[in-house]
Amino acid sequence: MKRDKEDLFKRLRRIEGQVRGIYRMVEEDKYCVDILYQIAAVRAALGKVGESILESHIRGCVRDAIKGEGGDEIIDELMEVIMKFTS
Amino acid sequence: MKRDKEDLFKRLRRIEGQVRGIYRMVEEDKYCVDILYQIAAVRAALGKVGESILESHIRGCVRDAIKGEGGDEIIDELMEVIMKFTS
Amino acid sequence: MKRDKEDLFKRLRRIEGQVRGIYRMVEEDKYCVDILYQIAAVRAALGKVGESILESHIRGCVRDAIKGEGGDEIIDELMEVIMKFTS
Amino acid sequence: MKRDKEDLFKRLRRIEGQVRGIYRMVEEDKYCVDILYQIAAVRAALGKVGESILESHIRGCVRDAIKGEGGDEIIDELMEVIMKFTS
Repeated sequence: MKRDKEDLFKRLRRIEGQVRGIYRMVEEDKYCVDILYQIAAVRAALGKVGESILESHIRGCVRDAIKGEGGDEIIDELMEVIMKFTS
Repeated sequence: MKRDKEDLFKRLRRIEGQVRGIYRMVEEDKYCVDILYQIAAVRAALGKVGESILESHIRGCVRDAIKGEGGDEIIDELMEVIMKFTS
Repeated sequence: MKRDKEDLFKRLRRIEGQVRGIYRMVEEDKYCVDILYQIAAVRAALGKVGESILESHIRGCVRDAIKGEGGDEIIDELMEVIMKFTS
Repeated sequence: MKRDKEDLFKRLRRIEGQVRGIYRMVEEDKYCVDILYQIAAVRAALGKVGESILESHIRGCVRDAIKGEGGDEIIDELMEVIMKFTS
């Protein structure tokens, strides 16, 4: 669990640096297409962070709730946030 | 459950008709942008069907597996298919 | 151009068949996760058809409009439909 | 043009702050679902920045190239980067 958090921190710090990199690319009038690829890379990296968090949410909270009282509400909530990522 | 299936059948039949509609649009040399919006509509409709099936999978199989032996494997499988939809 | 259309027809007919396949999978109570992968495949196939149409739109109408009177309006329209696919 | 850049800077600085916000949410063990919504918001904000850059690329470089020697190569390149965003 702690290792997972360290991993997330590392990835988020990297993403923060990449966003600053995009800022600089705009500042230095870098070629638009190169900036677009960089943006796509950051979006993909954020997507990966989201997947990790979603996975630990399902393995943690969702599983516990289901083992407990059934989990109807937490599944409603889960579906909503998944739709936010898929649509 | 039966009502859910009837609903899915109706939506899938509608999607099939929409795909045939796109075929005709190409055949009749309709304006590209109109065809693109129609494709986006069908993709969104398929996404909605996917969400319904994902939801009943989570409320059914996933929940049962968790209530039973823990659900580790079914959650691995679930994460993989969610990633297929989000990336 | 004619070859491109033949190719689109083939792909759209295949997609129509895949949608019918999903229908049958639901009918025969196939495993949800397998249905979800099939839906993801059809969505990807529709995306590819969309890309082909977008490409010929840009190489055709958009280029002609730009070569002619400047293309401001057609680029507005293009941006809108691209956003429909990216968001 | 300068105003567009100012606008991009503002949005990128905001995105950088949001990424740091996500970092803090992980640090403070905030509820996973709340973090996921925040990630979805940053992804959407990055998507908007991408759209702006794509639009100025099309209105600038792509249009100029088409007005000049035809633009075949720049359209190839454009299609590739659009696919990066749509798939």
